[in-house]
Amino acid sequence: MKLSFNKPFQYSPSGDGGLQVLHIIKIGGNIIDDEQKLLFFLKTFAAIKAKKILVHGGGKLATKLAGDLNIPQQVIEGRRVTNADTLKVVTMVYAGYINKNIVAQLQANSCNAIGLTGVDGNIITAHKRISNNSPLGDGGTNSPSGDGIRNIDYGYAGDIDSINTDLLQLLLEQNMAIVLAPITHNNEGQLLNTNADTIAQEIAKAFCKVYDAHLIYTFEKAGVLSNVEDETSVLKELTYKEYKELQGKQKIFAGMIPKLDNAFAALQTGVKKVIIGKAENLSDLINGNSGTTIIYE
Amino acid sequence: MKLSFNKPFQYSPSGDGGLQVLHIIKIGGNIIDDEQKLLFFLKTFAAIKAKKILVHGGGKLATKLAGDLNIPQQVIEGRRVTNADTLKVVTMVYAGYINKNIVAQLQANSCNAIGLTGVDGNIITAHKRISNNSPLGDGGTNSPSGDGIRNIDYGYAGDIDSINTDLLQLLLEQNMAIVLAPITHNNEGQLLNTNADTIAQEIAKAFCKVYDAHLIYTFEKAGVLSNVEDETSVLKELTYKEYKELQGKQKIFAGMIPKLDNAFAALQTGVKKVIIGKAENLSDLINGNSGTTIIYE
Repeated sequence: MKLSFNKPFQYSPSGDGGLQVLHIIKIGGNIIDDEQKLLFFLKTFAAIKAKKILVHGGGKLATKLAGDLNIPQQVIEGRRVTNADTLKVVTMVYAGYINKNIVAQLQANSCNAIGLTGVDGNIITAHKRISNNSPLGDGGTNSPSGDGIRNIDYGYAGDIDSINTDLLQLLLEQNMAIVLAPITHNNEGQLLNTNADTIAQEIAKAFCKVYDAHLIYTFEKAGVLSNVEDETSVLKELTYKEYKELQGKQKIFAGMIPKLDNAFAALQTGVKKVIIGKAENLSDLINGNSGTTIIYE
Repeated sequence: MKLSFNKPFQYSPSGDGGLQVLHIIKIGGNIIDDEQKLLFFLKTFAAIKAKKILVHGGGKLATKLAGDLNIPQQVIEGRRVTNADTLKVVTMVYAGYINKNIVAQLQANSCNAIGLTGVDGNIITAHKRISNNSPLGDGGTNSPSGDGIRNIDYGYAGDIDSINTDLLQLLLEQNMAIVLAPITHNNEGQLLNTNADTIAQEIAKAFCKVYDAHLIYTFEKAGVLSNVEDETSVLKELTYKEYKELQGKQKIFAGMIPKLDNAFAALQTGVKKVIIGKAENLSDLINGNSGTTIIYE
């Protein structure tokens, strides 16, 4: 099935497909790094009655640990380069420390959770990001290879090849909550560090024929702002047309653009709902009383 | 049901109970710290047709990481004291780095594995080891409390309260291999560091009515030696009577005694087989061509 924005994918509005709802919720460093906020968030997450998957990224802890171990961190065009030592650090921090502490807190809140990575049950296979697939904005005039392509080696960064929903579905059907750390593998024994936003999106897409997949991206703002300088200017809904208009007027700031592109792409492939907002407002995000609901129409 | 060595528990010899075999295999630092040995072991483990659980301990990596981070390590009477920083390190190393790398290698060997801790699916609850439950060999004359009990605080060391087999059985019935790191929790959000030998034993005991549980302890020797100075003096079988005789003659060395006491205790509660030997010989341990089979009779 090929889909494009020119030929919109037809889907039923949320809830009427006769399918159960699955919430896929992504949290990032702004909540993971704040113990009190995280505990409150997990209490709210534990209380969600519907099926649920929590995808977490890292936080400052990985950077701090790398610093304490004198592992140099390299960031190219906003992306962290995962060298072998950094991969070790993120595997320990994401899959070990953060993942297991989250699960322990959920168990303490009577939520039977299980912490996994993409390696477990072969949930996510990926390949090491190919180093020369990053086109240069400058037309490649600075490219050492002279072919308009810059050779950037992101190290052990993994781009997703496949999602295997078997294990996840087995566990969801037992009403277990799943906590997913962003570590994947290449099926040849190599662990890889994969973007947690992308994992959340691909999991939602993979489940959209089985469940009504609701994808909730949390970040530091209460939603998509119509005016980036006004924190209260949260859009309740955002259609693709409105998004393009705001983008044309440069009202939507840079970091938001890939998030929204991903959100519309997810809706296009059958995800029922995409909501963007603050993790602190999780209940209201789910009830539709907070955040921005992204609408593909 | 109360059991004692005076009133032996009656069980059928292995294999005739009509139950499927479940191998519970414990590996320790001597195999985890040697990359080539570990890869060979995992290849052999992946090829086991029967249901299987691998319980792994740590290795030198946790000690090294603690050293690199300048976290002082304290060992009292052979037991590591798990302070808060050490708990963080072992959670990262055991549940993160070691566990996920083992699972990735098993996936690469076409073995669908899942890496878990006692926290996941509430598999193992434990309590923080009570600090004053360690009777003194010297009659307590040096005890600050003067009551014959030494107050030793082992920190976040967890003694097992319960094993919940539901999730494990669900996964085993899907023919998934389980890789278990020795981190547990107290159901109040606190992670705990629990002895991996004890976890293997308790899991085997918990499953003995569902499967023919075969418990395989691997260590640096090829089995129980009748003469500690002769590596070739491996006993093919060891009964409780023979054990007590060898112990009486001081032919069985100190570190072996708790292992064997645990082995006999496991058999007494219904575990079908306990085998002690080298991880390098895993196939032969399973086939009965290597190691020492502990027999309760």
